[in-house]
Amino acid sequence: MIRWIAFDADDTLWHNETLYSRTQDRFIDLLSRYHDRDWIIEGLYTTEMRNLQSFGYGIKAFTLSMIETAIELTEGRIEASEIRQIIEFGKEMLQAEVQVLEGVEGTLKELAESYDLMIITKGDLLDQEIKISRSGLGSYFRAVEVVSRKNRESYANILERRQIQAGEFVMVGNSLKSDILPVIELGARAVYIPYELTWAHEQDAEPEPGINGYYKAEKISQLPKLIAEMEASHGGGRKE
Amino acid sequence: MIRWIAFDADDTLWHNETLYSRTQDRFIDLLSRYHDRDWIIEGLYTTEMRNLQSFGYGIKAFTLSMIETAIELTEGRIEASEIRQIIEFGKEMLQAEVQVLEGVEGTLKELAESYDLMIITKGDLLDQEIKISRSGLGSYFRAVEVVSRKNRESYANILERRQIQAGEFVMVGNSLKSDILPVIELGARAVYIPYELTWAHEQDAEPEPGINGYYKAEKISQLPKLIAEMEASHGGGRKE
Repeated sequence: MIRWIAFDADDTLWHNETLYSRTQDRFIDLLSRYHDRDWIIEGLYTTEMRNLQSFGYGIKAFTLSMIETAIELTEGRIEASEIRQIIEFGKEMLQAEVQVLEGVEGTLKELAESYDLMIITKGDLLDQEIKISRSGLGSYFRAVEVVSRKNRESYANILERRQIQAGEFVMVGNSLKSDILPVIELGARAVYIPYELTWAHEQDAEPEPGINGYYKAEKISQLPKLIAEMEASHGGGRKE
Repeated sequence: MIRWIAFDADDTLWHNETLYSRTQDRFIDLLSRYHDRDWIIEGLYTTEMRNLQSFGYGIKAFTLSMIETAIELTEGRIEASEIRQIIEFGKEMLQAEVQVLEGVEGTLKELAESYDLMIITKGDLLDQEIKISRSGLGSYFRAVEVVSRKNRESYANILERRQIQAGEFVMVGNSLKSDILPVIELGARAVYIPYELTWAHEQDAEPEPGINGYYKAEKISQLPKLIAEMEASHGGGRKE
């Protein structure tokens, strides 16, 4: 019954938010003689949200928002050499090693024997392609979809284009807002695997336990068993 | 015989390089008290090429490269308020109206009656999606491919994934390097329609006239007749 298992990438397959968080700490240090930590965090988040519509997601957008925030919060007193440092923060992020999360490779290997695997990730196209390549996980996936937004429409679009029925599709990810809620709205299944950190923008309320199509796991290594249970309960129709 | 006609987007369907060029002029004005025009153009191009591998193509990459160049060329004397202006240049580019080139809409309409049309564009995913949407041309296309690089491999990939034979495929674009040469290398056909401006990075030598698969047109409106001639010469096998 299940044919496709799709995975979010950042913070589901590899560490990502920690990279942003570490960079944000360096940004806070850079501005520490002007403002305190909370004020800087709030200022940066406000800028990011204001720019989201035109910049989208990803490291380049984040870097531009850091520069803009630094100029704003220092009322133009920041020096060019400090802005140069912010650009370096961005470049270092783009060149950072990809740290695959624990249990990912074994799980993908096991699942790829029985299912078609897909990556569905939002963000910057080149950046995501580079991370997939650096992760060494590319060969487990039959398809990669980099989208600019993750909502009900963008998932419906992927399913339609690839002729996948909602009942044949399971999405796995760490963001309730982007990976889980729009997918269960479509009548497909989604497995929420929380990551240690969640960007404020991605936070959302967890669905009621037992709601149709919603599953939760602590670790990705629990996935094969969970998927087998889904198949069994649907196949027999008795365990529901 | 021909099933798919694919179009580059920037400077093939709508004006784009003019937008970069106008912004570059504003950037030159901003730095005019530090350096002369040629030095600034050269500095910016050098920065862009250095950053291409990690930043990729698109307006955000261009904006970050302008900021970096401004700091470098002024040896850090540029003021934060001027860097703020460069960010504004980038935002204005992202919000700019899409100006569809003359003859595009009628040509697409005519060709869409007999062929499947596709966009193959490189650049920033969100930015390209927004332009397709703003252009009002989206409905003529059965497929849109935003890729991070245009080379022989990326075209081969698209053809394979969509099960298109090289002989069934024609690519139309304004860049010899990105739209024409890799496509004729694959044994498919490509129509070069020069645009009034070409970014130095996209310049390449024109193929010899008469080389297999290479065609040239002055205007997009000549395309239906040219495609019909391709079909006739292949169908009959006598006009070659």
